Amino acid sequence: MGLKLYVDRLSQPSRAVLIFCKANGIDFEEIKVEIFKRQHLSPEFEGTVMIAVIPTTLEIKSLGEAINPLQKLPAIVDGNFKLFESHSILIYIASAFPGVANHWYPADLTKRAKIHSVLDWHHLNLRHGAVIYLRNILAPILGLPLNQEAAAEGEKILISSLSIIENIWLQGNGLYLLGSFQPSIADLSLVCEIMQLEILDEKDRDRILSPHKKVLQWIENTRNATKPHFDEVHNLLYKLKKNLSAQYQANGMMELKIKTPLTSKL
Amino acid sequence: MGLKLYVDRLSQPSRAVLIFCKANGIDFEEIKVEIFKRQHLSPEFEGTVMIAVIPTTLEIKSLGEAINPLQKLPAIVDGNFKLFESHSILIYIASAFPGVANHWYPADLTKRAKIHSVLDWHHLNLRHGAVIYLRNILAPILGLPLNQEAAAEGEKILISSLSIIENIWLQGNGLYLLGSFQPSIADLSLVCEIMQLEILDEKDRDRILSPHKKVLQWIENTRNATKPHFDEVHNLLYKLKKNLSAQYQANGMMELKIKTPLTSKL
Repeated sequence: MGLKLYVDRLSQPSRAVLIFCKANGIDFEEIKVEIFKRQHLSPEFEGTVMIAVIPTTLEIKSLGEAINPLQKLPAIVDGNFKLFESHSILIYIASAFPGVANHWYPADLTKRAKIHSVLDWHHLNLRHGAVIYLRNILAPILGLPLNQEAAAEGEKILISSLSIIENIWLQGNGLYLLGSFQPSIADLSLVCEIMQLEILDEKDRDRILSPHKKVLQWIENTRNATKPHFDEVHNLLYKLKKNLSAQYQANGMMELKIKTPLTSKL
Repeated sequence: MGLKLYVDRLSQPSRAVLIFCKANGIDFEEIKVEIFKRQHLSPEFEGTVMIAVIPTTLEIKSLGEAINPLQKLPAIVDGNFKLFESHSILIYIASAFPGVANHWYPADLTKRAKIHSVLDWHHLNLRHGAVIYLRNILAPILGLPLNQEAAAEGEKILISSLSIIENIWLQGNGLYLLGSFQPSIADLSLVCEIMQLEILDEKDRDRILSPHKKVLQWIENTRNATKPHFDEVHNLLYKLKKNLSAQYQANGMMELKIKTPLTSKL
């Protein structure tokens, strides 16, 4: 009984775990949780967006107690051992599987502590902001009521988090977080979170991301360090982005309706 | 240059770190960040409440880049090494200082992974719910506008988190989280979070906590495992509780005004 990953490639922490295993040559079985069939969503397209904006961990009703009593993705089963929460999964795999290079999760206690610190910070900052923003900005596409205050609050947390990454976590001349010249699990986790912004309208994405030049370069560095797996695992998200672009273009008015009050608030 | 802890005993993660060090006989210097003087808050009492409901990490403008560029508590300095985020601090101290019993942060990879999983879950569940709820329910005392929707949302997340602790994390016959018979850093972190509810009006506290019998017993178990340090470190919170009780009694109408819409929403 080898390592089983219960994942959805549209969920950002699922992608981080998948890319990590592929980049480190770890054998695993990818168990795709077929959300469409289970949630009986229709039309299929709307279901896809719903998945892509749902948080950090993804509630899957039928994942069941056998795998994860909280019914969320990603989850893993390694022999008889079950685990969820993506950061914990990344740390476990980096520690338990031979052949993972030290830079992903260094044995040195101070380096390791700094990586924990970034990962802890992630939850209530970058992740929290990105999830609130995406969920609310895409509400009209999901057929949900638009909560402009929530979207504005999410955008504020998201932009503040990107500034902290730019000015604090990416300080120095390194290519990765904490001034490192090689990536860690924290780089992968945070970059996958930011990649979720790809499904935004191009103008929104650029407005939020483009002022953060170091962040953009760091995303490229992480992509390069894990190629070709990074793009292969993100391929489903790129397809969704393409589908949504057509929607945005066809529905300029709706877009305008969302953005005007947001811009005026910030 | 020994271990320095930059803490405020009214901040829940600061207390977790303090109790952990005291319970494990670790030498440290407690550097109390004197928030009153720096924030120039007046009257002093209101300042105290403000501190007690501010999140997980506490923003201290004057903490400065030398200690923590994000200017938050708790933070530590160990020789030349600086660290913040309470979970990361607990893990670092448990790993770097001799004499910490294995049960606090087990060397076994699967046990350790489960503790990471609880700690990761904490951020966007128990901590998130408790902070939103406390900040909003105490808004009138802080002279801030009451956001009933936010308070109701915080209470919902908080109660859901307590149910998950009761039914999932405290499953089995153990005395602590994950069915353990000895406490880990996760017990201390989560219990200190819940202890912040002590500053609520007694009726609110009981309404939220009393249905969770296992949670109440587990708080007692954690208190017993770390005595006398647990109560000694919480003493400032108990004093605040006493002061606030008098306020609640003197201001029954305000209390009623907060609770009615909350109850009707949930």
